[in-house]
Amino acid sequence: MNFCSDNTTSTSPEIMAALAAANEAPNLMPYGNDPVTEGLTARFNDLFEREVAVFPVATGTGANVLGLATLVPPYGAIYCHEMSHIATDECGAPELFTGGAKLVDLPGDDGKLYAAELDAVISRAGAGVVHHVQPAAISITQQSEAGTVYTPDEIGAIGDVARKHDLVFHMDGARFANALVASNASPAEMTWKAGLDVLAFGATKNGALAAEAVVFFDPAKASEFGFRRKRGGHLFSKMRFLSAQLDAYLTGELWLRNARHANDMAARLAEGLRDTAGVAFLYPVQGNEIFVKVPGAVADGLEADGFLFYRWIDETDPTLRLVTTWSTDPAHVDAFVASAVRHAGK
Amino acid sequence: MNFCSDNTTSTSPEIMAALAAANEAPNLMPYGNDPVTEGLTARFNDLFEREVAVFPVATGTGANVLGLATLVPPYGAIYCHEMSHIATDECGAPELFTGGAKLVDLPGDDGKLYAAELDAVISRAGAGVVHHVQPAAISITQQSEAGTVYTPDEIGAIGDVARKHDLVFHMDGARFANALVASNASPAEMTWKAGLDVLAFGATKNGALAAEAVVFFDPAKASEFGFRRKRGGHLFSKMRFLSAQLDAYLTGELWLRNARHANDMAARLAEGLRDTAGVAFLYPVQGNEIFVKVPGAVADGLEADGFLFYRWIDETDPTLRLVTTWSTDPAHVDAFVASAVRHAGK
Amino acid sequence: MNFCSDNTTSTSPEIMAALAAANEAPNLMPYGNDPVTEGLTARFNDLFEREVAVFPVATGTGANVLGLATLVPPYGAIYCHEMSHIATDECGAPELFTGGAKLVDLPGDDGKLYAAELDAVISRAGAGVVHHVQPAAISITQQSEAGTVYTPDEIGAIGDVARKHDLVFHMDGARFANALVASNASPAEMTWKAGLDVLAFGATKNGALAAEAVVFFDPAKASEFGFRRKRGGHLFSKMRFLSAQLDAYLTGELWLRNARHANDMAARLAEGLRDTAGVAFLYPVQGNEIFVKVPGAVADGLEADGFLFYRWIDETDPTLRLVTTWSTDPAHVDAFVASAVRHAGK
Amino acid sequence: MNFCSDNTTSTSPEIMAALAAANEAPNLMPYGNDPVTEGLTARFNDLFEREVAVFPVATGTGANVLGLATLVPPYGAIYCHEMSHIATDECGAPELFTGGAKLVDLPGDDGKLYAAELDAVISRAGAGVVHHVQPAAISITQQSEAGTVYTPDEIGAIGDVARKHDLVFHMDGARFANALVASNASPAEMTWKAGLDVLAFGATKNGALAAEAVVFFDPAKASEFGFRRKRGGHLFSKMRFLSAQLDAYLTGELWLRNARHANDMAARLAEGLRDTAGVAFLYPVQGNEIFVKVPGAVADGLEADGFLFYRWIDETDPTLRLVTTWSTDPAHVDAFVASAVRHAGK
Repeated sequence: MNFCSDNTTSTSPEIMAALAAANEAPNLMPYGNDPVTEGLTARFNDLFEREVAVFPVATGTGANVLGLATLVPPYGAIYCHEMSHIATDECGAPELFTGGAKLVDLPGDDGKLYAAELDAVISRAGAGVVHHVQPAAISITQQSEAGTVYTPDEIGAIGDVARKHDLVFHMDGARFANALVASNASPAEMTWKAGLDVLAFGATKNGALAAEAVVFFDPAKASEFGFRRKRGGHLFSKMRFLSAQLDAYLTGELWLRNARHANDMAARLAEGLRDTAGVAFLYPVQGNEIFVKVPGAVADGLEADGFLFYRWIDETDPTLRLVTTWSTDPAHVDAFVASAVRHAGK
Repeated sequence: MNFCSDNTTSTSPEIMAALAAANEAPNLMPYGNDPVTEGLTARFNDLFEREVAVFPVATGTGANVLGLATLVPPYGAIYCHEMSHIATDECGAPELFTGGAKLVDLPGDDGKLYAAELDAVISRAGAGVVHHVQPAAISITQQSEAGTVYTPDEIGAIGDVARKHDLVFHMDGARFANALVASNASPAEMTWKAGLDVLAFGATKNGALAAEAVVFFDPAKASEFGFRRKRGGHLFSKMRFLSAQLDAYLTGELWLRNARHANDMAARLAEGLRDTAGVAFLYPVQGNEIFVKVPGAVADGLEADGFLFYRWIDETDPTLRLVTTWSTDPAHVDAFVASAVRHAGK
Repeated sequence: MNFCSDNTTSTSPEIMAALAAANEAPNLMPYGNDPVTEGLTARFNDLFEREVAVFPVATGTGANVLGLATLVPPYGAIYCHEMSHIATDECGAPELFTGGAKLVDLPGDDGKLYAAELDAVISRAGAGVVHHVQPAAISITQQSEAGTVYTPDEIGAIGDVARKHDLVFHMDGARFANALVASNASPAEMTWKAGLDVLAFGATKNGALAAEAVVFFDPAKASEFGFRRKRGGHLFSKMRFLSAQLDAYLTGELWLRNARHANDMAARLAEGLRDTAGVAFLYPVQGNEIFVKVPGAVADGLEADGFLFYRWIDETDPTLRLVTTWSTDPAHVDAFVASAVRHAGK
Repeated sequence: MNFCSDNTTSTSPEIMAALAAANEAPNLMPYGNDPVTEGLTARFNDLFEREVAVFPVATGTGANVLGLATLVPPYGAIYCHEMSHIATDECGAPELFTGGAKLVDLPGDDGKLYAAELDAVISRAGAGVVHHVQPAAISITQQSEAGTVYTPDEIGAIGDVARKHDLVFHMDGARFANALVASNASPAEMTWKAGLDVLAFGATKNGALAAEAVVFFDPAKASEFGFRRKRGGHLFSKMRFLSAQLDAYLTGELWLRNARHANDMAARLAEGLRDTAGVAFLYPVQGNEIFVKVPGAVADGLEADGFLFYRWIDETDPTLRLVTTWSTDPAHVDAFVASAVRHAGK
């Protein structure tokens, strides 16, 4: 009964089957010169309703920083939320891969950035003045690190700011599927139609073993990517095993089914907790992550009952992060709620 | 009938089974906080007959450069063979991860470096003189890129040079298993007993899906590794799937059996070609790679017969690289020989 | 009548004379192997009442980042004020030279950092957790970018925080002389006695042509500096011309006299403006910089009268930055005050 | 009687006078916003007979690597002579500033690279193949580190290779003036007319105190330079003192007079040594550097007589490097020859 992270789940059976199938095709050429990898472009073109350039990698950090480094100069500034993964959880990977670009960490309600504030900050950043790092990119996380979801309109407004200041617009989509099913938007509406340039398209947290894709919406801008992926040590010799995961992930809408289940479980969990005494939600629950402040006794009781989760803010009445996944058992959710209610009632 | 690379083979069934088994254990904690990963240390301690620090990664380039970057300063010089993978096939990954260290590419018979030449070069490199990059590391590849194997004595002599000049001694062991079975040495004799500090222990080319390990023979020197792996984007959230591969790779001596088969197939192939008219071997055949110059008609004929291989030096009478693997079919070897003999006889 | 910056002043005659004298000694060996450079160590040892390692460079940015890069790992976090020069005015130089360390920009009253807030931030930064950049250094600016001065006690308290968390303690001393004369402290009390590890000792803003010194208070920690200075392009072949400036700067307390004059002029200017209608000081005036909000008509009038200064915050009633220097003419100060008073009176 | 280096000489009186004059103009704006700096563009436009972009810096290493880093990607290869300053004497500065580009060190007679060999090496470097660093630039040194001089035709042939492979063509012109006066070529013929993109224009070795200029022959390609100079710590606040040196250096052909004297002294020295017993020149003497193998007794005797020089190859009969400068006294040259002849005669 683990609510710690979407990294604790197992791999979807469909993806395990795809790996086994890929292993039956022996003697495929390495480094992506295989039919599965070559087929990914068509798959992602269809998905996004336009010609894209797509590159498999194995980690979310790799996907984020290789995409950014391809488009951001070493003296560039990357505007991001102060809670963003690139700012807080990649141990300086963006700085390493870009050659020293600076992340400008900004506050923002509900874990999100907003167009007006971005425009104001960037307008006074000193574009063209050699003393200052130069505005180069905006990066948002979809679903955000607060579990919230940007609407296509919000993204489009940020995209307009990026265009106005001639910046790259990047999305950390580690939980892109969760964001998508939480809205009525299409993949295209959520990305390039809203001005996005490059997306780290996540799969690992949503049922893959270890697979992500970097998607450039203008293939001409991806020309450096291959070299940067290789020198980052992120070019897999047996790339077909990454590609097979991504292929299975998209087949039969597995990715959307998985995400929908995760989101449904989060909603069920939030609903169950909503009226519990002493419980307060930090952010709207829109995807598969819940941040909830609970009485200390509730947190202690849940742990005593065998539930696993992170104490996000560890104080007397702690804030818990609860993450649901494609494989979360509804019975575990109900048991969690029952336990919380019981301990809150004492 | 593919002799292009050991990257074209499928994954060993035992390793696929281990991945499936790892997937049955749900809700393990991420980032290596799982029993399989935690068990690797004991496995590698046993293997190397001493306490080591071991870290799973997914690519050979990642393994090489993370190990080097942990121990080499940005102003350091890394002495390596001019054919070495780090010098020619990593698109500058060592320079990226070390922050700009310089690879000093050296010649050497049969793809190997030798202690006396290394000592001479390093002695005149200007240690302590601020104008020059500072001698920092020696890196050798075992089995070498020429398919040859260093003896423990040869390694020990290089280790002495490393000690004399206070340098780090690194081994790219992408084909470490092939080298080991080609000799009578133990893993300990081939590494730390010969003065080695850090090893990129390969598995991907010898039956894994995508798994390598970085092994530090003095765990105290590994303190920076975790941070550098993370900021390189090489920390896997579901690390258990890397660890499971390595665990299965070592279980029941799978790795040695796989390597032995690959080496046997190379020996069989070399034996078959040895007396063919117009055929000349560039290097002694000791592991699972053969570099052989053949008449142009032989190369053309082999390709017409459906054999795949790289033309390493593409000239009238080309030099072919032929690589055998854990899964090479002896019948394919025999067919290759028969084809070569037939085309040479014309 | 230029109050823009201490970079607009001329070079002190004593320093010009020292350059001319240095030029009379022909055929000195390059790269610091000359008597003037060699004599600097004794000078700085005397100045700081302990054995130090001292290295001349030519720019303040170079001095800051070479000192930091010598002691901070690429995955390190450097805690600094959000107004600090390293954070805002070096176009990413710290990131370049450290190989990607992250500046953590913190607020703080009067342009200063305080021990308690630093301790709190660093305590929750996740030391030892691989996902996060690792606390590595605290950097303060003395005199601060707000023109204020840290007391030795304030510095000592920060030094205690640095020790507690095992961090490097760095000072950007571009205006170190101004800070020193503003207090009753000795150079030793202002630095290593308060826990400082490394100081960028400025001279350019206070009368040198182009000369700074990096001072390590534990010479053993400076072992990498020479290599990093060289690969930064900051090793001067004719280093004697940097050293001669520093030597003259310290001779006969020129540096203190220069700074005292600059501070006196600032005090005179502040005194003159203090009771002017509509004038408000942003920070206490302690050194040679004044930040003062004035009515728009006053700013316009001053400019019309030929005074030069920066509009630090350019709004209807702008905030001006006024900088006085070793060569500021008291008559210019008085004329400035008279002009401001006149325009305020309208 | 110092023949060690052109870094041991004093500064030309004309340049010292220019510094003094620049100091008389108080209150000039910093960072190059001054009349002297602004006037440099016209000066260099005239000199090179076309519109250029010119940037003052203070060190030759800074000039080299800032020019290269502006135009070479981190995954690029820079082809250079194995004796070149960037390869051997900058402690990895090119790697730092480019973010990890690789210097490919090539042999070449008389310290020079030749078009045919470059074309052959670059043609087989694997352009477009992600495993390899990508051909990005050719860098030559004029006058070379062997004291020899490229003819405009030789440079033009290399320029053609650069164009053919779409590479940047860079020249380390630390001794550009010496090369120029050694030929009948104009600055334009020696540079952009021969295909050059960027020049490190040296002055420090030829009479300046510390001043070099980076010259881009297509100003549009210089757009990143300002940011890279700043983040390299190479933007001088009092830039007027660099510019004044460069201005005086070019005024009245001081630079050519200085170089001509240095070259004449080298010719006189070579002529005097030519017939001495046991003396052999390694390279043609064309500029202001001589590499000459002498009997051990001659080297010892010269040192005993008080002459200073470097033993370039320190063996029984050592090779000496002898450098003449703008200020070398002909009497010292004659005394050197007399001493050598005397000791050789023993």
